[in-house]
Amino acid sequence: MNPFRFHNPTVLYYGKGQIEQHLAAEVTRYGKRVLLVYGGGSIKRNGLYDKVMGILTEAGVQVFELPGVEPNPRLTTVYRGIQICRYEQIDLILAVGGGSVIDCAKGIAMGAKFDGDIWDVYQRKAKANDALPLGAILTLSATGSEMNAGGVITNWETKEKLGGSAPPHTFPRFSFCDPENTFTVPRDQTVYGTCDMLAHCFEHYFHPTHNTPLQQRLIESVIATIIETAPKALENPTDYDARETLMYCSTMALNGMINMGVEGDWACHAIEHEISAIYDIPHGGGLAIVFPNWMDYVVDAGPERFAQLGTRVFGIDPAGKSVDELAREAIAEVRAFFRRIGAPQRLADYGIGDEHIERMAEQAVRFRKLGSFKKLDKEDVAEILRRCL
Amino acid sequence: MNPFRFHNPTVLYYGKGQIEQHLAAEVTRYGKRVLLVYGGGSIKRNGLYDKVMGILTEAGVQVFELPGVEPNPRLTTVYRGIQICRYEQIDLILAVGGGSVIDCAKGIAMGAKFDGDIWDVYQRKAKANDALPLGAILTLSATGSEMNAGGVITNWETKEKLGGSAPPHTFPRFSFCDPENTFTVPRDQTVYGTCDMLAHCFEHYFHPTHNTPLQQRLIESVIATIIETAPKALENPTDYDARETLMYCSTMALNGMINMGVEGDWACHAIEHEISAIYDIPHGGGLAIVFPNWMDYVVDAGPERFAQLGTRVFGIDPAGKSVDELAREAIAEVRAFFRRIGAPQRLADYGIGDEHIERMAEQAVRFRKLGSFKKLDKEDVAEILRRCL
Repeated sequence: MNPFRFHNPTVLYYGKGQIEQHLAAEVTRYGKRVLLVYGGGSIKRNGLYDKVMGILTEAGVQVFELPGVEPNPRLTTVYRGIQICRYEQIDLILAVGGGSVIDCAKGIAMGAKFDGDIWDVYQRKAKANDALPLGAILTLSATGSEMNAGGVITNWETKEKLGGSAPPHTFPRFSFCDPENTFTVPRDQTVYGTCDMLAHCFEHYFHPTHNTPLQQRLIESVIATIIETAPKALENPTDYDARETLMYCSTMALNGMINMGVEGDWACHAIEHEISAIYDIPHGGGLAIVFPNWMDYVVDAGPERFAQLGTRVFGIDPAGKSVDELAREAIAEVRAFFRRIGAPQRLADYGIGDEHIERMAEQAVRFRKLGSFKKLDKEDVAEILRRCL
Repeated sequence: MNPFRFHNPTVLYYGKGQIEQHLAAEVTRYGKRVLLVYGGGSIKRNGLYDKVMGILTEAGVQVFELPGVEPNPRLTTVYRGIQICRYEQIDLILAVGGGSVIDCAKGIAMGAKFDGDIWDVYQRKAKANDALPLGAILTLSATGSEMNAGGVITNWETKEKLGGSAPPHTFPRFSFCDPENTFTVPRDQTVYGTCDMLAHCFEHYFHPTHNTPLQQRLIESVIATIIETAPKALENPTDYDARETLMYCSTMALNGMINMGVEGDWACHAIEHEISAIYDIPHGGGLAIVFPNWMDYVVDAGPERFAQLGTRVFGIDPAGKSVDELAREAIAEVRAFFRRIGAPQRLADYGIGDEHIERMAEQAVRFRKLGSFKKLDKEDVAEILRRCL
């Protein structure tokens, strides 16, 4: 493994009843002026908004609100949140929602303490060294944002979708994960969330880092459990056990615990960001399209890892098969899983054609070549995108 | 899974060169008066003492020393450390050693901030709510103490060996794990460390908690990797990759990351503590003796979990075998592994007879019945101990 530094200070609460028992104490530790950040209103329909407001009000907290955070959260929304924080002297930002809401809250938290345009941080022109405290109540199993320091923001004017962070400040100070809050997540969102968490595992799994046997097994554990569990959650959205396991997989997939000392690939995420920066498609849907095509394109750089995925996770019998055959069977299994849960297969499913491929490929590599498993230049990215059509 | 709260704030540094690069900054964050706690002098022989002293001195740190911490660290040593901390107004305790040294440092850290006899905390008569900051430099892969809040101390006068903690205060603020610092660990200690980390995995793995598919796979990942790697480290003590992987397994086995929301068993640890409180045998050696006998005794309470261990970790072919048969084969594999690496098999290997079995059994259950996988009373413990003879 590579030498590494690991630090994840988030206090994680999991399970039924934790919000009722511990939210008030966790919030008021940071003050009494709270900015509640949330999305399109699903938390008003399912009762979570009322529950949280009740707890905060009873605890003597003054609540300010930033509703309407978009699925691909926008820089303009981050700016609005920053203004509220400054004007109202907010002590804590409380994100109630999925990864988009939490990512937006992270941008606001950094921006409220940043002297300048916070977009510079996402553009890597500047570094944020502080952030307002933020906490999270998770309502969607997908991004792992509830237990990591990063967040992705879209600048709709420039059509750029970029990640930013300021660890340890942008780790949620606390996160509440109650599986019941995901019971009402629509089927499509459950599918996209599943694709997203699986994609995080794949980004960790395909890498050139030497000597990572435990990390590989930990990642395989999460992949296997997602594949086993997602169909159950899709079949019965109020299956507590399935929702709980899926939620836990999503947290573990991107809280840094299964990939210490590993240089992940992350090319597919970068490519998907270019797609959704232009077309505003769901992140998880884009990943489900890009990943199998990326796998086909890069498999020869290390078929052994793909073969191992096939035998260990998908239970492929290796008897009489070459490594290359096993690798291709494993990719076919990944493709089949995405199809089985109803994920999109091609960009055409979103009505996307080849009109912006050159531009997306150019943008994707503007900071550097992509990937660690196999380095990709502009031509590679364009070819992968063409295969996604 | 059970509802849970997880919080592990330790900053973990892994790999070659991290001490040289980051130790001075991490230490001086807490002050300039440091108590260096270490054991029998192996760090003087292998050069680590000189390296650390050089770095601290250059950073302007005033170093006080507490050498000679015992393999089963003693309460009297904790008391000595507490006195030094108070008298010298220590800012940070730096433990350089294995689990015993770090556990001792935790006792000192709690005691230095505790108004009363710190032994009361281990006896569960009082609660510690603060601790001096402590950091660790790990030299032995075994206990996981470098990334958890607990520690075990032996009161030699009363023949009691008890665990205590005050999270988050007793988490090391930082821990440095350089595999090269384990190159000179003697063969026996490497064996005991392997037994200890494996035992931690087993304590997590055998439990009655509902719906823990991911946790089970994560634990199996660590077990499989230990079993694959320990023989390599024993065969070639300076095999960097093997030492690195084993070190990483030991940290992951007891930092809370693979067993969130799981009610572990911990009967074997409690039983072993009674043995080594009287006979002062190595903790890992005692565990290697107790665990297979405990497994034989409790297997009928849940043979499925044992069978799963057999098929998933030991690669036993389930074709044509009953769950009970698979379970017994799995236990045989565990026994065979301990034998293969040269771990002790019976209490007789340490010259221990049946003279104190009743007393040990009585002491073991003095707070409550042991175990979660199967509850054990005094008679159960006595029977397991007799099987260990």
